Amino acid sequence: MAIHNNRQRLKDIDNTGFGPNSSIEGGRLVNPDGTSNLRKRGIPIWERMSVYHTLLRMGRRKFGLFVLFLYTAVNLFFACIYFLTGVEHLVGGDGGASYFEKFMEAFFFSSQTLTTVGYGRVAPSGMLTNSIASIESLIGILIFAIMTGLIYGRFSRPRAYLLFSPNILISPFKDGKALMLRMATYKNNNLTDVEAQITLALHVKEHDRTVTKFYPLDLELSKITSLALNWTLVHHITEDSPLFHYTKQQVMETRMEVMVTIKAFDDHFSNVVQQRTSYTWKQVVYGAKFLPMFERADNGEYTILELDKINHHELVNMDQYQNKTVGA
Amino acid sequence: MAIHNNRQRLKDIDNTGFGPNSSIEGGRLVNPDGTSNLRKRGIPIWERMSVYHTLLRMGRRKFGLFVLFLYTAVNLFFACIYFLTGVEHLVGGDGGASYFEKFMEAFFFSSQTLTTVGYGRVAPSGMLTNSIASIESLIGILIFAIMTGLIYGRFSRPRAYLLFSPNILISPFKDGKALMLRMATYKNNNLTDVEAQITLALHVKEHDRTVTKFYPLDLELSKITSLALNWTLVHHITEDSPLFHYTKQQVMETRMEVMVTIKAFDDHFSNVVQQRTSYTWKQVVYGAKFLPMFERADNGEYTILELDKINHHELVNMDQYQNKTVGA
Amino acid sequence: MAIHNNRQRLKDIDNTGFGPNSSIEGGRLVNPDGTSNLRKRGIPIWERMSVYHTLLRMGRRKFGLFVLFLYTAVNLFFACIYFLTGVEHLVGGDGGASYFEKFMEAFFFSSQTLTTVGYGRVAPSGMLTNSIASIESLIGILIFAIMTGLIYGRFSRPRAYLLFSPNILISPFKDGKALMLRMATYKNNNLTDVEAQITLALHVKEHDRTVTKFYPLDLELSKITSLALNWTLVHHITEDSPLFHYTKQQVMETRMEVMVTIKAFDDHFSNVVQQRTSYTWKQVVYGAKFLPMFERADNGEYTILELDKINHHELVNMDQYQNKTVGA
Amino acid sequence: MAIHNNRQRLKDIDNTGFGPNSSIEGGRLVNPDGTSNLRKRGIPIWERMSVYHTLLRMGRRKFGLFVLFLYTAVNLFFACIYFLTGVEHLVGGDGGASYFEKFMEAFFFSSQTLTTVGYGRVAPSGMLTNSIASIESLIGILIFAIMTGLIYGRFSRPRAYLLFSPNILISPFKDGKALMLRMATYKNNNLTDVEAQITLALHVKEHDRTVTKFYPLDLELSKITSLALNWTLVHHITEDSPLFHYTKQQVMETRMEVMVTIKAFDDHFSNVVQQRTSYTWKQVVYGAKFLPMFERADNGEYTILELDKINHHELVNMDQYQNKTVGA
Repeated sequence: MAIHNNRQRLKDIDNTGFGPNSSIEGGRLVNPDGTSNLRKRGIPIWERMSVYHTLLRMGRRKFGLFVLFLYTAVNLFFACIYFLTGVEHLVGGDGGASYFEKFMEAFFFSSQTLTTVGYGRVAPSGMLTNSIASIESLIGILIFAIMTGLIYGRFSRPRAYLLFSPNILISPFKDGKALMLRMATYKNNNLTDVEAQITLALHVKEHDRTVTKFYPLDLELSKITSLALNWTLVHHITEDSPLFHYTKQQVMETRMEVMVTIKAFDDHFSNVVQQRTSYTWKQVVYGAKFLPMFERADNGEYTILELDKINHHELVNMDQYQNKTVGA
Repeated sequence: MAIHNNRQRLKDIDNTGFGPNSSIEGGRLVNPDGTSNLRKRGIPIWERMSVYHTLLRMGRRKFGLFVLFLYTAVNLFFACIYFLTGVEHLVGGDGGASYFEKFMEAFFFSSQTLTTVGYGRVAPSGMLTNSIASIESLIGILIFAIMTGLIYGRFSRPRAYLLFSPNILISPFKDGKALMLRMATYKNNNLTDVEAQITLALHVKEHDRTVTKFYPLDLELSKITSLALNWTLVHHITEDSPLFHYTKQQVMETRMEVMVTIKAFDDHFSNVVQQRTSYTWKQVVYGAKFLPMFERADNGEYTILELDKINHHELVNMDQYQNKTVGA
Repeated sequence: MAIHNNRQRLKDIDNTGFGPNSSIEGGRLVNPDGTSNLRKRGIPIWERMSVYHTLLRMGRRKFGLFVLFLYTAVNLFFACIYFLTGVEHLVGGDGGASYFEKFMEAFFFSSQTLTTVGYGRVAPSGMLTNSIASIESLIGILIFAIMTGLIYGRFSRPRAYLLFSPNILISPFKDGKALMLRMATYKNNNLTDVEAQITLALHVKEHDRTVTKFYPLDLELSKITSLALNWTLVHHITEDSPLFHYTKQQVMETRMEVMVTIKAFDDHFSNVVQQRTSYTWKQVVYGAKFLPMFERADNGEYTILELDKINHHELVNMDQYQNKTVGA
Repeated sequence: MAIHNNRQRLKDIDNTGFGPNSSIEGGRLVNPDGTSNLRKRGIPIWERMSVYHTLLRMGRRKFGLFVLFLYTAVNLFFACIYFLTGVEHLVGGDGGASYFEKFMEAFFFSSQTLTTVGYGRVAPSGMLTNSIASIESLIGILIFAIMTGLIYGRFSRPRAYLLFSPNILISPFKDGKALMLRMATYKNNNLTDVEAQITLALHVKEHDRTVTKFYPLDLELSKITSLALNWTLVHHITEDSPLFHYTKQQVMETRMEVMVTIKAFDDHFSNVVQQRTSYTWKQVVYGAKFLPMFERADNGEYTILELDKINHHELVNMDQYQNKTVGA
């Protein structure tokens, strides 16, 4: 089959950290958010999960609910203990008659202890209750310390805040075609020394087995000194490009995947930031070109970057390229 | 026009992250504080603003006012809630007669809860008020955690603390001229492995369109091992320099912009720090040279760096350079 | 002796930071956890120990016990002081009759002060007791600050979370043999730009003295762009390899040690992480090869990495390699 | 004079960040602790001092006293305010008769508010006192946040913990001499990828002016992969060395200064650490060699590094080197 012969002269690489054996790998390799499409097994979950990092990367709303849940759960736990060891040792309260009122008094006393607010209107008396309250306030302080660390960690976690175009385009470029994707930072951060790296993964048949082949894609510009506006990554599909030898149909058959890694220095964080993403063949638009996404302000004093236009493109006629392959 | 011909042999670069199309870019490219002169649009403000980083970079006084405002606002909010749900559930207070006095009691109780000081002279009673107080003290702890993170972030944010001379000078240098600017660290920090990079932006006419051209400017010394005293960046205007081909008048017409990036290792932070700035043609002083800004202490035992002399220069006669262009 | 002659043409290195004099060095050089097998002496322990880092690297359970112990100790200390300076100045309590009850009241008051919960049911009165409580609450706040820092430090300490195969294998490879070891990340973290470096240490006789010789071992692949699945480090034992010239017996006699250093960028921490380990000749399995440790999920949509199979290998017949040396 | 001629063929460098003009520089360039021997002037002290970094680098004892002083000062300040606005609004106290007792009650109330312990035995009443207490508790929380940040910053500040030999030796080496200095880490930290850089500064006469010349000194080994034991930096004084051309007397006259910079990766901090030091001609010992500073443990299972022997050396006869210059 032609695909196989064409590929022979191309140099594939084996330093991607993924294996070449397609038959035991499942689905796409990298998820759109840049994580590997992989599950780990064989050691207990608490050893293979990093609780801290899970909480760090959790969405804002989910994190809020988690905090509220934790607070309620710990207070319920201690309220039960105070209730069981004798709520009468919590002196000073309203002294409600019902069990529910007594339990709630224990619950609120617990919350006052955990947060160290300690009004003292209700206060512990006796050895046992005092001991429990003493432990609870220590736990409160430790939870607080953990919260402080988590919240600081969430805020200060270096991120590139890059927005990628949802589509990859096959656009006319010079005398041929190029694969293009576009990106921009969507926050008020400054990236400098920005490097891009694109790896193509193809699942091809070789000696009756399906193997995964990886190819680095050369970029017209793979490093820029500063990312102020948007940046369009351009891979010119020349004869040296692996894509030159595939038709649109073949690209689909090989379940093409384009993995993108961006590395930059962010002076918000004074740190290196990295963001990865991945496109599959389903996201390729054949025969289109990106339209500008920035314009001059009306008063002429600054430039406006329109982030909602990140994927703004128009279809172009690619008929003059008689060759049916994706490239040339 | 001569400008265009002269420029032909110079190599301009397109890896600056700014676009070449002057007609849609507005004003200067980089602000004096090093940020890009750019606004983003098309996604909601809370997604394109990093609240954390805005608070991190806010001036000290403004940050203090923000904290005071936040504290008052949250307390007012909870005071309203306590007031509406029945201030009589806050037992123990002075029991002022007027609504205002009652509201203030709720306000102060709120502040005692939020800061977890919880004197308890005024304390909540009843399910509803206890629940609100319980939530408020949690919020207090979380706000406190955020404050701790913010304040630590503000202190520990790696910065180069570089002071740049407000002017760029065109000074006599060797047999010709040089573009010079001066910098020094103004805090008690030590920078090592300091690298400087200067990019020149010119807005020139090309085929009836104004395009922005970027040129890297070669420096006599672009890297020093340690920045103890001041450092003068010197770009010798030789025939290879883009500035060689422009007269003073033309520099103004092309709205010249000089973008400076300094990168160094700071052993205060044990981190890479970066600082950027930008000069426009209005800041160029033609025919001047910097005067020394350090001297020996009277007792001869240390050196004194006089930071107020960062821009200290004297005018020099440049008449012997008959050529009217900026360069030789 | 043959060993010595063979070695002559190999280039050993002296930049490992370990000395060449085997007779004064003891035991293995690097421990399995990557620390140097070394004790320091000659300066007081508090100067040569980093308390912070010891607490940072302490196991979770041990750290919890340490916190509990510290809390109890500080409270006991202050309880003694309150008791000695007159427990009657702690007004409001249950006023237990026995010394023990009085002491415990002081103890619980101390814990309420240290955690700043301060119910106020028991409160200090008089100059001396007030002063002590005032100092204790300051100490409480400082301990709290230290705890927050420690807990944040423990969470956010950049680590590679690498799992190494407990054994090194001598496997068939190409026309000869190779030394192989395997690794994988066991948490949900992503390593990129992963570099491996292996150094071989041999204790050999030279002019009647035993000296330690260090050799870098060439790897088939010493850098990968991303570590998604497992990575097998392969050192092909060619004629250029120091191992080529040793028999199994000689390897034991030279007390071979294989030191492994992995350096990578972790985008959890946006930081460089490093992990080291070391194998001795006792961990070498002669004639075996690793078996796959990942498979496709049943639904075909992701890959499963089985961490308990990190050391999964089968013995292979190495008889065709007639040469008795470790290498081909 | 011979010194000047000899120097001609040596290449001095001007990228050290220090100026060449000796007559306006004072004393040594770099202090033993690695900071520049430099004072800054011309801008207000609060702009040129980094309070955070000063507190970060302050000795442990001094920092403790600073915290105690700050705590007392803030409490005194607020005690005065409570006293002046009417101490009778602090209800509940012992109600001491004397002014002093009243003031102290205000002082202790202040400390209970600042630390948020808030027993409530003494509690504020009335608008004004409540407002002040509300502000104070906010300030308390902010100071606490600052303390947490400072203490974490102090603990987590990346440092190399390097101990340098107090002396530089001129030792016999190969067929000639070498300048040697020794270092070791004194904490339980692991340094990898350690790089050393030595710069020699000489104040020499040139055309009737004294100028400072800087020379990089070549090292036998300038980079090691890991610093486990001690490391001796060796500069072989060959004909290419600037020191080759100076006699002992001339070294003193030129007020020789040897500036040392060590850069390494520390896996405690997972960060690059840097330490600098400087030696003057007074610290040079002519004709001596370092003695070993580590030995095998009695049980043979680990190595002992004796830190008190960092400067351990014995004098050696250098008479065979007839040449009177420092070098060969």
